[in-house]
Amino acid sequence: MNISHIEHIGIAVKDLRTAIPYYEEILGLKCYNIEEVTEQKVKTAFFKVGQTKIELLEPTSEESTVAKFIEKKGEGVHHIAFSVDNIVDALAECENKGVQLIDKVPRKGAEGLTIAFLHPKSTTGVLTEFCN
Amino acid sequence: MNISHIEHIGIAVKDLRTAIPYYEEILGLKCYNIEEVTEQKVKTAFFKVGQTKIELLEPTSEESTVAKFIEKKGEGVHHIAFSVDNIVDALAECENKGVQLIDKVPRKGAEGLTIAFLHPKSTTGVLTEFCN
Repeated sequence: MNISHIEHIGIAVKDLRTAIPYYEEILGLKCYNIEEVTEQKVKTAFFKVGQTKIELLEPTSEESTVAKFIEKKGEGVHHIAFSVDNIVDALAECENKGVQLIDKVPRKGAEGLTIAFLHPKSTTGVLTEFCN
Repeated sequence: MNISHIEHIGIAVKDLRTAIPYYEEILGLKCYNIEEVTEQKVKTAFFKVGQTKIELLEPTSEESTVAKFIEKKGEGVHHIAFSVDNIVDALAECENKGVQLIDKVPRKGAEGLTIAFLHPKSTTGVLTEFCN
């Protein structure tokens, strides 16, 4: 597969209202988009750092996988998303090589991206997303 | 402060010998450097993805903070490193704004970089490094 860059880093936070000021006022980054992804039960906030975005993820329900992540591990890095040129081919290659997939078929994510997740059991513990 | 890009993402792994093949053979990235950082009791392996490096961290001692991280949280993302133009000024700005620092004075890291860490208590749970 061909990965061009890290598209974004997803960070699980309890509350965007307290997290956004850290990224803006301390790190000097600018939040350029806030978007709710109903399907994943999260509210997201985006910042650009060079080629890569930081995507803060606040759970909107206790049933959200992000809420469960925070409960288990605390706030912190939730996933890394790689930009691939062909997401269907990348998933097929992973499956052929024995990588456990969360999404066998790409689906719609935030910011109009097509996304799919690999299981952290196969990816050195890092919840890994492909997107394009 | 001025952050230009994400310099690297540090990922804690138990064993480079099993982790490197995932990044090379599945993701198609190339390991271009393996380096031991004695002071931090880790062996590191580097891959380039666009502007950003992936730095795998294998503890070389049970006393390593990375070994303790793995014991507590399992393998996965250990820290994010931002490239800043002036690391001393960036640390001073953080301290003035109430951010808890791990390193008040920059020190030497892998790949000849000057580095300093912020405490995850102040950074939405993300162990955060400045480097240049």
